[in-house]
Amino acid sequence: MPFERARGIWPPVATPFRSDLSIDFERYVAHCRKLLAEGAHGLAVLGTTSEANSLDLEERHELLEGLVGSGIAAEKLLPGTGAASIGDAVLLTRHATELGARGVLLLPPFYYKAVSDDGLFAFASEVIERIGDERLQVYLYNFPQMSALSWSPALVARLITAFPDTVVGLKDSSGDVAYTDRLFSEHPGFAVFPSSESLLLAALRKGAAGCISATANTHVAGIRRLYDGWRGPEAEALHEAASRVRTVVQAYPFIPAIKAILAAREGEPDWLNIRPPLERLGADASASLIGALKRMGAM
Amino acid sequence: MPFERARGIWPPVATPFRSDLSIDFERYVAHCRKLLAEGAHGLAVLGTTSEANSLDLEERHELLEGLVGSGIAAEKLLPGTGAASIGDAVLLTRHATELGARGVLLLPPFYYKAVSDDGLFAFASEVIERIGDERLQVYLYNFPQMSALSWSPALVARLITAFPDTVVGLKDSSGDVAYTDRLFSEHPGFAVFPSSESLLLAALRKGAAGCISATANTHVAGIRRLYDGWRGPEAEALHEAASRVRTVVQAYPFIPAIKAILAAREGEPDWLNIRPPLERLGADASASLIGALKRMGAM
Repeated sequence: MPFERARGIWPPVATPFRSDLSIDFERYVAHCRKLLAEGAHGLAVLGTTSEANSLDLEERHELLEGLVGSGIAAEKLLPGTGAASIGDAVLLTRHATELGARGVLLLPPFYYKAVSDDGLFAFASEVIERIGDERLQVYLYNFPQMSALSWSPALVARLITAFPDTVVGLKDSSGDVAYTDRLFSEHPGFAVFPSSESLLLAALRKGAAGCISATANTHVAGIRRLYDGWRGPEAEALHEAASRVRTVVQAYPFIPAIKAILAAREGEPDWLNIRPPLERLGADASASLIGALKRMGAM
Repeated sequence: MPFERARGIWPPVATPFRSDLSIDFERYVAHCRKLLAEGAHGLAVLGTTSEANSLDLEERHELLEGLVGSGIAAEKLLPGTGAASIGDAVLLTRHATELGARGVLLLPPFYYKAVSDDGLFAFASEVIERIGDERLQVYLYNFPQMSALSWSPALVARLITAFPDTVVGLKDSSGDVAYTDRLFSEHPGFAVFPSSESLLLAALRKGAAGCISATANTHVAGIRRLYDGWRGPEAEALHEAASRVRTVVQAYPFIPAIKAILAAREGEPDWLNIRPPLERLGADASASLIGALKRMGAM
């Protein structure tokens, strides 16, 4: 039996590094466990916030196997498996599927620019058909600001028609509400995840499945409360409470900012380590971010 | 003894695929041999025109080993070894260096956007230092239209200062003459390769090392004649002759156009095969391209 489509709050888990930039797996597992304990429905590991494209192929395999080996249920994992080449995307996607992951988040092939929908359709079809595994569930990962390519609504419709049991959802990091609105109205039941809790309430009212937000790495409990209570009388208040942190954090580069919050909260400067070409938040920016969160009682 | 810096005409070799999209290695070696026989000084394999970022890591390793195994001297190879992650870039670069390649063409890490020069410097430094091999010679690969990131002149200067015996050249695919002019004047002896034969004569007069041009896949002999004769009285005529083909081809998407010309010339439709997300040239465009080349006697 294939999994039901994912729903709820799936933090895109930040990846901790030691000062030599190797993955600190122990800290990683602890972070994953904490997120689940605080209310995450599952973990969108190996996405952009996870610096997945700064990990090599072997690390991406090892990290996923390590999580499952450490006792975290594979069905709670929604790993990013995108790559620039069909071959590498197939390797990563097949590996995740065979491990029993809930599904995969698939980026478009992000080296080329000005690629047509036909070309992207051929890419995604080739990946899905080469894997040829009925357990495979693909969540398209739309992040044109980073990948430069987009899963357009017309292309999403083609992929759902061609692979109705496989292409089951989409994470949208574009923040383009008109884009997700179109998906909600054209594909009821398609599991769409906006990337911000500040868009979550409005999106849930239109049929969203949940959200996959960077700030869920640090403040998942409030987002979960909103998800649980959005149909109730407290919805607006829960939305306000869940969105306050995001309003502060989004003034900073997301990945370094999330790592700065985790470092400050855990008193662990190693959380600041980040792989080039990304850079850690400067000391001033970090102090100003943490100060703002403390003033609002969010640290 | 490290190699002398590369000079001359180094075609960015197109990669032939069978209809199932696997690499046709026999055709590939034949194409490489033909290019060398027709005047190429060496081969810039596994670059953008080679669809290197559509090959998986293992294929990139195998292809390079296969070329050397087939008797093509490793010092005639300048493979692209860029990747989004430090780890994969190190694997590819170390492998090429240990095989004895003349050098490597290094893309910036092409997933992230809006990355600072400091971040790119840290990325390149990390790759170079992890390899720690005095045979390593890095040619920076500047192609902002594709990688979205650029090796800025200030960053190039920092890298040359930090690694004077390792960072020895640059391929510029931006076509930005002011950019290469700045490199020529600031770094005499730095091996700069523009990506078009139509820029070659002017660039050689300013100190360019040669060129790495997609159209050298199909018309290398004329480009070689220009390179050999640019100091002589025929320079302008050789420039005109070498540049005519480019003028026609550049109206089409480069990679599919190069493959269409190779398919027509060899009467081998398999040359049209291209990996998604790229698409082959349509029949009409292909007929119009080949017709134009025939009318000018270039087919």
